[in-house]
Amino acid sequence: MNQADGKSPQWSCPSPRSDGSRVLLAHGEGGRLSWQLIQSRILAPLRAAQVGMASAPGAVDSARDFARDAAHLPAMAGRLAMTTDQFVVSPLFFPGGNIGTLSVFGTVNDLAVSGALPRYLTLSFVLEEGLELSVLDRVMESVAHAATETSIHIVAGDTKVVPRGAADGMFICTTGVGEVLDPALPGPAAIGAGDRLIVSGDIARHGLAVLCEREQLGVTPAPTSDCGSLLPAAMALRDAAGAGLRTMRDATRGGVAAVLHEWADECGLTLAVDEASVPLSPLSRGVCELLGLEPLHIANEGTLLAVVSSECASAAVAALRAAGFPQAAEVGIARGREFTPVTVRRSLGREQPLDAPQGAPLPRIC
Amino acid sequence: MNQADGKSPQWSCPSPRSDGSRVLLAHGEGGRLSWQLIQSRILAPLRAAQVGMASAPGAVDSARDFARDAAHLPAMAGRLAMTTDQFVVSPLFFPGGNIGTLSVFGTVNDLAVSGALPRYLTLSFVLEEGLELSVLDRVMESVAHAATETSIHIVAGDTKVVPRGAADGMFICTTGVGEVLDPALPGPAAIGAGDRLIVSGDIARHGLAVLCEREQLGVTPAPTSDCGSLLPAAMALRDAAGAGLRTMRDATRGGVAAVLHEWADECGLTLAVDEASVPLSPLSRGVCELLGLEPLHIANEGTLLAVVSSECASAAVAALRAAGFPQAAEVGIARGREFTPVTVRRSLGREQPLDAPQGAPLPRIC
Repeated sequence: MNQADGKSPQWSCPSPRSDGSRVLLAHGEGGRLSWQLIQSRILAPLRAAQVGMASAPGAVDSARDFARDAAHLPAMAGRLAMTTDQFVVSPLFFPGGNIGTLSVFGTVNDLAVSGALPRYLTLSFVLEEGLELSVLDRVMESVAHAATETSIHIVAGDTKVVPRGAADGMFICTTGVGEVLDPALPGPAAIGAGDRLIVSGDIARHGLAVLCEREQLGVTPAPTSDCGSLLPAAMALRDAAGAGLRTMRDATRGGVAAVLHEWADECGLTLAVDEASVPLSPLSRGVCELLGLEPLHIANEGTLLAVVSSECASAAVAALRAAGFPQAAEVGIARGREFTPVTVRRSLGREQPLDAPQGAPLPRIC
Repeated sequence: MNQADGKSPQWSCPSPRSDGSRVLLAHGEGGRLSWQLIQSRILAPLRAAQVGMASAPGAVDSARDFARDAAHLPAMAGRLAMTTDQFVVSPLFFPGGNIGTLSVFGTVNDLAVSGALPRYLTLSFVLEEGLELSVLDRVMESVAHAATETSIHIVAGDTKVVPRGAADGMFICTTGVGEVLDPALPGPAAIGAGDRLIVSGDIARHGLAVLCEREQLGVTPAPTSDCGSLLPAAMALRDAAGAGLRTMRDATRGGVAAVLHEWADECGLTLAVDEASVPLSPLSRGVCELLGLEPLHIANEGTLLAVVSSECASAAVAALRAAGFPQAAEVGIARGREFTPVTVRRSLGREQPLDAPQGAPLPRIC
């Protein structure tokens, strides 16, 4: 303290705890600081966007109900769909999205492609001590926007804080409940020879966006994630293809190849992709060639694969394009089982086996 | 390589990846290793205990549905209850429980005290690269036992792996869906002057058990967590007190004091606790005195507080004791609002304000 100017001493607090801009361990311990954090940083943006509990008819809205009690919600007429995801993406922000958009759209998409209407979402955080609160604010703003876009209500949550070094910034777990739409989708076991493969947009953008951001590869322009809602795509496909729609799946971890391998296992057929017809931006193609990556193995976060009967294929593609997915395309066909479950006809015309993704080419992309 | 003995070189793999006993980054990336981990380490113990998806009527059971799609479940007649929790306890194992029992019982208890019958649970992991798979196995065994005890079905899950140092061993997020029982509980706003406070067992055990284990305090015998199901307690209270049951809450983070402060805020009364009647083991009392901790601030994981009308109090205590909670006791009363919202009559007879827990006396206890 410098008292040479004759004024009274200027007390300053030596603890970094007191500057109010960062997450403290005490924010996670269930005391008053926890409620303040939940009220001002988590519930306030949800209320402002009218996607919090109070906006779900019949539900109660308070920090205490959000964090401690169970939310009570109206009965649903149909069957329940339920899914959960942990999001550990690094970095937290990337071109086209962040951990907040990812966690809402990811869970909404899982419900939508399963044939359900997303209704309720829970949101659980692990925060690392020292995380800037402004980061949480930006993430919550994105969560609120994504929930508004998909008309889902965020009805319960939890916040835990771990000491510095015990987590990497922020993890989010979202769990979604939806109402299964009637009629239920037949599923991949119903895929028949002659059915067509459809993709809703250009592939590989999410994985490449996160990779380029994390490794600071300096690609200009930077690839942008496709992170977004697949609810309009799923609804359009249901409407256009009707009983001709066999199954849908968002092509996340493991990319298009992982989905095709799972489906081929379940239906016992060979799924053949025509590489030339798979939408891929020149930028994505360039980055993949530069890094030696297979675009069909790279994660998407707003792109789905669907299988429809051959007579529905063009109507399904047209419906996707009209629903805001202008690059939707028919990309392949199901055939009687051959030697390999999944094949790709390369641009030069040769047909090759397409391997399932084995390992971890791109860790922490969601 | 030493070839001096004339034999051919003994090739050994330099990578710790290949010994098969630890979590690899590739276990989290959606490829074949992910499915193997989910099938053999997560789904197998749930199937063996018949608490996996297949045992929920109408649900599908495969690693792919568990991890990727949404589970589809039968419609529920009543209103939905929904709650979520992230568990970051350190250490993962402690006397009386582990992160697996904690994550199932914690979410089941939130549903039960809210007045719902627990039905479905999702289970999402963050695993740190290098975690021993035997740790995951022990946790999953506990998860399966806890789910069996509480008759809840584990219907969906997710597994993410982060590099060494980006998480601390294992975090688990559980989300529970229950069916709200009729009639709904009135809630804390319905607490009236003269109503009685009831606790289901001796307090402070969970927080002390984790603290002594983590800090290796060498207390003998070590305090044992109360980690367990409150479903029988909640059902017994409903049956015994009927319309006289105002509200229930499991006294987790922030302990009994946090619950009383929340209730006092909501009902606008003063809640007065009689310290001498609060069950506390001699061991817990001794550890609290040694460390200067207030037992009413310490977390429990299998102990609830309830408020009942005065005429129901003894029947409620008797019902709890008969339901396997032998230490249940009446511990206080609601009075017209006085200067402080929560008071405690100390053993020597003086009544003092009981503060709400402010900060983080015991981080990472759940």
